[in-house]
Amino acid sequence: MKLTLEGISKDILTGDRRSLARALSVVEDGGPAAAWLVRKLYGHSGTAHLIGVTGSPGVGKSTLVDALIAEIRRTGDLKVGVLAVDPSSPFTGGAILGDRIRMQTHTLDKKVFIRSMANRGHSGGTALATYDAVRMLEASGYDIVIIETVGVGQSELAIAKTADTTVLVLMPGSGDDVQAIKSGIMEIGDLFVVNKGDLPGAQKTASEIMQSLELSKNESGWHAPVDITNAEVNEGISEVWQHIRDHRDYLEKAGRLKARRRLKMEAELAELVADIARSNLQSSLEHSRQVQDLVTKLVDHEVDPHSAAEAVIQEIFSKTLPPDLCVK
Amino acid sequence: MKLTLEGISKDILTGDRRSLARALSVVEDGGPAAAWLVRKLYGHSGTAHLIGVTGSPGVGKSTLVDALIAEIRRTGDLKVGVLAVDPSSPFTGGAILGDRIRMQTHTLDKKVFIRSMANRGHSGGTALATYDAVRMLEASGYDIVIIETVGVGQSELAIAKTADTTVLVLMPGSGDDVQAIKSGIMEIGDLFVVNKGDLPGAQKTASEIMQSLELSKNESGWHAPVDITNAEVNEGISEVWQHIRDHRDYLEKAGRLKARRRLKMEAELAELVADIARSNLQSSLEHSRQVQDLVTKLVDHEVDPHSAAEAVIQEIFSKTLPPDLCVK
Repeated sequence: MKLTLEGISKDILTGDRRSLARALSVVEDGGPAAAWLVRKLYGHSGTAHLIGVTGSPGVGKSTLVDALIAEIRRTGDLKVGVLAVDPSSPFTGGAILGDRIRMQTHTLDKKVFIRSMANRGHSGGTALATYDAVRMLEASGYDIVIIETVGVGQSELAIAKTADTTVLVLMPGSGDDVQAIKSGIMEIGDLFVVNKGDLPGAQKTASEIMQSLELSKNESGWHAPVDITNAEVNEGISEVWQHIRDHRDYLEKAGRLKARRRLKMEAELAELVADIARSNLQSSLEHSRQVQDLVTKLVDHEVDPHSAAEAVIQEIFSKTLPPDLCVK
Repeated sequence: MKLTLEGISKDILTGDRRSLARALSVVEDGGPAAAWLVRKLYGHSGTAHLIGVTGSPGVGKSTLVDALIAEIRRTGDLKVGVLAVDPSSPFTGGAILGDRIRMQTHTLDKKVFIRSMANRGHSGGTALATYDAVRMLEASGYDIVIIETVGVGQSELAIAKTADTTVLVLMPGSGDDVQAIKSGIMEIGDLFVVNKGDLPGAQKTASEIMQSLELSKNESGWHAPVDITNAEVNEGISEVWQHIRDHRDYLEKAGRLKARRRLKMEAELAELVADIARSNLQSSLEHSRQVQDLVTKLVDHEVDPHSAAEAVIQEIFSKTLPPDLCVK
């Protein structure tokens, strides 16, 4: 039986897993169907605690997330959704593989939903699709949504930053810690986890992180904890979960949750606007003779790209304006 | 002595390295100064053969590029520029390190210029900065520009694709080859290099690539060569350079160079337009009460992001239209 968009938008609210799975595919693909679903379900979103988990490949993010799911399920009756996001999918098959393995562990738990996301052609990239995927999970009643970013590029960081609580995962002796400290990436972490804590140097790495956190002025009133874990054997996981909840409490008490979400909303709006501009241009390239001629001039080096972009943006947006606003 | 933009734009044409270095910093930062420089120098650009070199970390891209520079310099009097692009810089220190090491090798050769590029705050990301950086090298008389992408994410691939000739580097037995074949990434390669050819399985990997190339219908009349190299000891490098030149000849004879550059121009225009939209929104977020109210409604879940984006794009672009086009 084929699911209709209308049907999906109703059944997803009851927690139906099949509708949720379809809704996630729809938002991954983007376009009008995705926008329609989000419009319909937006009122039911914004309810989950979003936890971002990021870090270099090999530090054990997936294992940590897995242990975290088990801990969350063990200590309360919360529905847990996981989005494993891999915008760099062309070369790495990590997301899909990890998904399969994990599906086996949690497959019997109907209050856990794990989904790998890669770029499926959404012109705005994986970030925009991820925001909407979170909304689908929220509409379906998930209390906790973990956004695990598999890669380490700019887009992955951007995605991790959309969480309410961002967990930065490192491992001992990789040198990543020092690099991360230098490049200012530490700033995005609300919580630090030194995983593979059985390896030599775990304590040293944790101390280095703590030192650098003390150096960077903390104006927000939150002191980012640094936890040492060995996720393989569930060591340190309950502390991590406690600290994540502490951070959520802090955000709410300090009135910071709304401020954070406002910033995220602004960032999403900027990407959506960029996305609209991009697709308007795409359609102008196909249909407008004027725009095609401009590209010819560009290729012939008669006009430069920056001037052309300024000219073309006027062209494409003057047309989308309502007729009563513009006279030509 | 401080260099003026005017001075840079003149001296760069004489091949002055200091002006070139400054110009590259300017385009990396983006903004009006970058646009001004590109406007000024665009007529002197479009002259180089752009070679993209991409592949997973650890396959030996930098070593290959290094050997290629030596080969190009040995066989002709061509000026070679290298842009080592690392959009994923927050976690990896690769680009900067590689740069230092290589600077030492080619430091005495005044016809080689190597530059690491990471994201320096250009709102349009590293891709837009890279396009303009190529133009600066071209204005400075570089005949060959190698764009080496350090990472493996979407942005890196996008950058690699802007080249006239894209070299995809793999290594034996990494499993990457199979993954790449499956994910359709093979399509972007005009030339394949199996580096670290001394490792077991090199011939097998090369054969697999060749097989998959035969399966994918080749409609362009170009048969992508698959070379086995050991860049560490300069093995196979002259073949790679020969094949790169063959590809350039093919593009020109088949009249495909211009068609390719047109496609690239369209992609760049789309990104520039998206970038303008993004920064217009950013300034509206700061200055327009109407847009700020919209964000409040978004945060309060009174309006959904997709509807808000449509509304705001009309708002921000109606204002940038010339007054004689619009009446409010």
